[in-house]
Amino acid sequence: MRIDGRQYNELRKVQMVPDYIKHAEGSVYICVGDTKVICTASVEERVPFFLRGTGKGWVTAEYSMLPRATQTRTVRESSKGKVGGRTMEIQRLIGRSLRSVVRLDQLGERTIWVDCDVIQADGGTRTASITGAFVALGQALYGLVRSGTLDSMPLTDYLAATSVGIVDGDPVLDLCYQEDSKAQVDMNVVMTGSGKYVEVQGTGEESPFSPEELNQLLELSKQGTETLIQYQKELLKEAGTLIGGKANDDNQSRMESE
Amino acid sequence: MRIDGRQYNELRKVQMVPDYIKHAEGSVYICVGDTKVICTASVEERVPFFLRGTGKGWVTAEYSMLPRATQTRTVRESSKGKVGGRTMEIQRLIGRSLRSVVRLDQLGERTIWVDCDVIQADGGTRTASITGAFVALGQALYGLVRSGTLDSMPLTDYLAATSVGIVDGDPVLDLCYQEDSKAQVDMNVVMTGSGKYVEVQGTGEESPFSPEELNQLLELSKQGTETLIQYQKELLKEAGTLIGGKANDDNQSRMESE
Amino acid sequence: MRIDGRQYNELRKVQMVPDYIKHAEGSVYICVGDTKVICTASVEERVPFFLRGTGKGWVTAEYSMLPRATQTRTVRESSKGKVGGRTMEIQRLIGRSLRSVVRLDQLGERTIWVDCDVIQADGGTRTASITGAFVALGQALYGLVRSGTLDSMPLTDYLAATSVGIVDGDPVLDLCYQEDSKAQVDMNVVMTGSGKYVEVQGTGEESPFSPEELNQLLELSKQGTETLIQYQKELLKEAGTLIGGKANDDNQSRMESE
Amino acid sequence: MRIDGRQYNELRKVQMVPDYIKHAEGSVYICVGDTKVICTASVEERVPFFLRGTGKGWVTAEYSMLPRATQTRTVRESSKGKVGGRTMEIQRLIGRSLRSVVRLDQLGERTIWVDCDVIQADGGTRTASITGAFVALGQALYGLVRSGTLDSMPLTDYLAATSVGIVDGDPVLDLCYQEDSKAQVDMNVVMTGSGKYVEVQGTGEESPFSPEELNQLLELSKQGTETLIQYQKELLKEAGTLIGGKANDDNQSRMESE
Amino acid sequence: MRIDGRQYNELRKVQMVPDYIKHAEGSVYICVGDTKVICTASVEERVPFFLRGTGKGWVTAEYSMLPRATQTRTVRESSKGKVGGRTMEIQRLIGRSLRSVVRLDQLGERTIWVDCDVIQADGGTRTASITGAFVALGQALYGLVRSGTLDSMPLTDYLAATSVGIVDGDPVLDLCYQEDSKAQVDMNVVMTGSGKYVEVQGTGEESPFSPEELNQLLELSKQGTETLIQYQKELLKEAGTLIGGKANDDNQSRMESE
Amino acid sequence: MRIDGRQYNELRKVQMVPDYIKHAEGSVYICVGDTKVICTASVEERVPFFLRGTGKGWVTAEYSMLPRATQTRTVRESSKGKVGGRTMEIQRLIGRSLRSVVRLDQLGERTIWVDCDVIQADGGTRTASITGAFVALGQALYGLVRSGTLDSMPLTDYLAATSVGIVDGDPVLDLCYQEDSKAQVDMNVVMTGSGKYVEVQGTGEESPFSPEELNQLLELSKQGTETLIQYQKELLKEAGTLIGGKANDDNQSRMESE
Repeated sequence: MRIDGRQYNELRKVQMVPDYIKHAEGSVYICVGDTKVICTASVEERVPFFLRGTGKGWVTAEYSMLPRATQTRTVRESSKGKVGGRTMEIQRLIGRSLRSVVRLDQLGERTIWVDCDVIQADGGTRTASITGAFVALGQALYGLVRSGTLDSMPLTDYLAATSVGIVDGDPVLDLCYQEDSKAQVDMNVVMTGSGKYVEVQGTGEESPFSPEELNQLLELSKQGTETLIQYQKELLKEAGTLIGGKANDDNQSRMESE
Repeated sequence: MRIDGRQYNELRKVQMVPDYIKHAEGSVYICVGDTKVICTASVEERVPFFLRGTGKGWVTAEYSMLPRATQTRTVRESSKGKVGGRTMEIQRLIGRSLRSVVRLDQLGERTIWVDCDVIQADGGTRTASITGAFVALGQALYGLVRSGTLDSMPLTDYLAATSVGIVDGDPVLDLCYQEDSKAQVDMNVVMTGSGKYVEVQGTGEESPFSPEELNQLLELSKQGTETLIQYQKELLKEAGTLIGGKANDDNQSRMESE
Repeated sequence: MRIDGRQYNELRKVQMVPDYIKHAEGSVYICVGDTKVICTASVEERVPFFLRGTGKGWVTAEYSMLPRATQTRTVRESSKGKVGGRTMEIQRLIGRSLRSVVRLDQLGERTIWVDCDVIQADGGTRTASITGAFVALGQALYGLVRSGTLDSMPLTDYLAATSVGIVDGDPVLDLCYQEDSKAQVDMNVVMTGSGKYVEVQGTGEESPFSPEELNQLLELSKQGTETLIQYQKELLKEAGTLIGGKANDDNQSRMESE
Repeated sequence: MRIDGRQYNELRKVQMVPDYIKHAEGSVYICVGDTKVICTASVEERVPFFLRGTGKGWVTAEYSMLPRATQTRTVRESSKGKVGGRTMEIQRLIGRSLRSVVRLDQLGERTIWVDCDVIQADGGTRTASITGAFVALGQALYGLVRSGTLDSMPLTDYLAATSVGIVDGDPVLDLCYQEDSKAQVDMNVVMTGSGKYVEVQGTGEESPFSPEELNQLLELSKQGTETLIQYQKELLKEAGTLIGGKANDDNQSRMESE
Repeated sequence: MRIDGRQYNELRKVQMVPDYIKHAEGSVYICVGDTKVICTASVEERVPFFLRGTGKGWVTAEYSMLPRATQTRTVRESSKGKVGGRTMEIQRLIGRSLRSVVRLDQLGERTIWVDCDVIQADGGTRTASITGAFVALGQALYGLVRSGTLDSMPLTDYLAATSVGIVDGDPVLDLCYQEDSKAQVDMNVVMTGSGKYVEVQGTGEESPFSPEELNQLLELSKQGTETLIQYQKELLKEAGTLIGGKANDDNQSRMESE
Repeated sequence: MRIDGRQYNELRKVQMVPDYIKHAEGSVYICVGDTKVICTASVEERVPFFLRGTGKGWVTAEYSMLPRATQTRTVRESSKGKVGGRTMEIQRLIGRSLRSVVRLDQLGERTIWVDCDVIQADGGTRTASITGAFVALGQALYGLVRSGTLDSMPLTDYLAATSVGIVDGDPVLDLCYQEDSKAQVDMNVVMTGSGKYVEVQGTGEESPFSPEELNQLLELSKQGTETLIQYQKELLKEAGTLIGGKANDDNQSRMESE
């Protein structure tokens, strides 16, 4: 029995409120237990320097925590004058994960900025961010399809993330903060709707782990992301039906090799 | 008739949700129309360098906007590596206003950090922040009283803020963004429960204003802050009954001169 | 009787030396008592990004203090690597105030940079800066008129600023540092030659103030700025006669509404 | 057959020059193919703030590349005024990996700074850094043992890292830059001498990967790290014999739980 | 004949106004032709970290230019967020030069901060700064002697600086901006009252120079600094009579070796 | 007899390894005693803003030390977020020195970036950097000649640098760190192959120096740079034969005036 009464393979309560911010092209308020994140997707009609003139688009992410999202107040990164290593690592992870399911050459020369702002933190903020960010991204892209800017939905698959870890010697799914702070092994897994890995990041700083333990954790994470993707499907409805749909001719070759 | 159907002296719909963030000693989610701000108050058991050893406490504020609180996405100040002029001006205003009703010598050598994070912006974010921040501050101080850390509530009065301005030649109360962006004169007023001014900041960058216009605006702002303070009283309940109460002996002289 | 022997409504000795810096298009060395500021105006033939292609010009200000302008040495902002909140607040105030009397659409796509560098500080540095900056700006604009770059003087009115406050319970005009550091209420007022307010910034951090006190302070500030504008008129001479003159056709509508 | 003629499971030529920098307590010049890194370990007799008074030590790492380590010149991070996301991610990884095999409570209140400076880059710089850093760390710690500062060697195991990935559809070991830049899947694995995982970081930004592919990559990485650890053993000689040795009493409990 | 009618070995008009800033322990306004600099010396009762507990004092300098000291406006270093290379080079030169004539072990554990702020620039700002800074430093140290804080004046000699260079093929003394901008060789020389070199910095970026040219320039600089030191003597009067005086016992050894 | 057994006019052992970094257009690994520097030259096909459209090229340098190049570890400038004064001074010196022997108008609109990274420091890092940088620059320019991008070698002369100083009262050549740290006078001299000065930077912070001492030091530095230029000639071989060769017509006037 876990600290909060859950089974070892049980997710915390998940809630997603769509269209949470009126100005954004896509937005979701996601709660995984007491972890609460506002995810927005913003469309900008230009791309970073390295993509200009290529016809390709870009998806990038930023992540931040409100100062009092944490148990004791955290100093703002704007006050410190720089973005810390943990934040950079997380926002690079979110951006990379989202891009893995986007057909960038079908997006046109535009950037989707995905912002994940943690309102309240209780473990698993990066994986909640990815899960929520996918929905906000889906909404924003669907808006471009409905307005006729895009011919088809440039998403190849669903995408969700969860944490797993070894706590008190046992593998568990979706660690809350109290579990996370005493875990021997901590792993974040990002998976697609078709059950493929996009990111596997396992760390045994407290205690190296065996191949068997790795396999147990990977299996748990699969159960978690499958459930999260069910929630996403309910939320995205019509937009979701277009995910993974046939791409236009230019993408044909890439699609086949996948 | 105004853009959104309000009377010239009518506030937008106000909503305040107390205890919004579980980790914070005080927290409020305040909505004034479509302007939405999370205000938290955090207690830190030390003071800035210039107050060490004086026995006095400190209250300070930080203000920020989520990148997509605005109509088009705003670049994060942490990414830019510095806090901008507008942000500094606002957070200095919030801190100064709150301190005007706190008996710092009665607070002990501790700091209350007040964070105002704008989730969605539609005009009047600084005044909504002050109004919400006062409640979060009140909750945090009341917590110190209940736990016996403080003998009495170190607040001398209530405090709320509102904006007024001249739009299309007419003085109006509580400008939404659309009104604000075309106002000839823009003024923010911070008042106490006993009807005294703490801050009066009027700007006629678009058009200088006459003494008569100034008086009309001040009158409107009085109506607005009185209503806001009613809302605060409902929310603070028991904590509120202690506001303005008799200070201990050390403060006697200062109290009398007030 | 005040600390330095002045009446409650008496300005300190004012001195303005025009053409103080040989390189600048406009420059004034202004002394208000022991507060000494070098104000320069520099013409740059381009505008900030947000005005490109609009045909409009811009006026912006920067403010700084020499490290030993103050009683104890102040660390340079260049050494700290960032401009502080107080500096930003002041330079935004100066820029906003100056722009309120400039017809930006008549200035053409050029920027006037106004620099206010405090050589010695003894209270009221921001208001001395505004009063001096207006003269430097007037000189620079007059230079553009004389050279035929501009058809007419794009200034709608004179502009000066002074501080007022409540010291030992009494309202006084033009506070020196010693008065300022113990004032209960501190207010800066920027007024035009026709007696209209451009900025009213009153702060009662030490002690909230009543509507009656506000009116007394406003009245004092009016006397102060009227006197300062007399000095400006003597200095600007010929350039001054063109201030408020009829604008060209494009500005007609705006002029009438004023 | 691979670009450079290697088998799919073949490491590039590895060379390690010990005692490369005369000032450092430990130093190694490691070449893995054309990737060349100088690793140094420096002993500092104090710990970060959060460890003061705990009796525990710390190991931290910094990573950098010379501007012309890369094919086209890279702008220095000191010139840009900030450390980039990629650098932070890598140096956090190196530090975390090294700490996983150090008994910090046996190190005493001192910090080992490990610096990895890439002289020439040709893929796999982070894994070459970890493999070399372990040796430099081992030398520095052995110096503390020989001088009597430490009773025993506070290392629980050997540690090495390698990259694996899927290139042109095939799993391969130790990617050079040309392979890395076209890999569909890229994974870095850090392993101990006893065959346990310390870090598993797999990324399929170009193409999500299946559980079967993950297993193939993990198997390859095991072969690579085993070979690298053989090289480390030859180099560390006497110092190496003390690795994993019995800790003193204070560590007993932690040792058992491992 | 030179651009401004001077002889090849003629200084520009020199003017020094002592006690220019009322707050500073020492201050001089120095004009060398149209180059105008405010130099202040501030006494701080502590030393940098590396001198704590040694009983020695420190002298350090900072240099800056007002934005419109130059022909076209220069962006402030505070706005850019960092101090530029030219500024650092100059302030290191000023500090190093001043320290060469100060008995730091006789100063006690205090720091003299010397600030050189260029109000108007017309060539030779760094040498004018050194010449003026020495006087401000002398005043501040003399204040410490008069107040009894110091037993004797901790200055071993006078110190002044001038520029020399080769312009249109001819060696000249004290270059104005117009000469400086077309000089083939540019040299700054700092000398003591007894005719010894403290700094010799010659640069032939435009054209390397021969040993004979070097000797001609050194001879010219000697004439210049001798004249400047005469001005300093007139200004420092009584304070100056104590310069080079006998040090107390602790300094004896160092004095003899000099 | 000196600390390391050398004669007063004897250089330390000099070693230069050409083509040290495979990616760079020019590169040298230079050792002067235990001072070891990697110098690379990188060709970039564009120039800084102030040279665009002029047809001229640019040569610029950057200098850095690995953290453990020094006896105790030095904090990275990238971690501190700014480049220090010493570094700026040195890299400005290197760039200025190199430019003095380059015909920039013959280089075309391209920039040569010269990077000097100190791997191990034992005194004289800036002069070793200049001596090595000249060779790397020569290689890169020769590459442009061989590829037909340039018609002729745009170098007017050889260039090398050495340090001299007064240690224990005696003038010596090429100071190692131990000598440098106790020198009374420290001087760096940059000379051309034809025996002209490019930079003379002498500092007597510890003890001002006489004209006679200056001459002795200059003479020693001549012997040192002549020897270093012999080494450069051996290394540059064919490339070296083109140095100082006749420039094309456009440069004729400048060449004659030299």
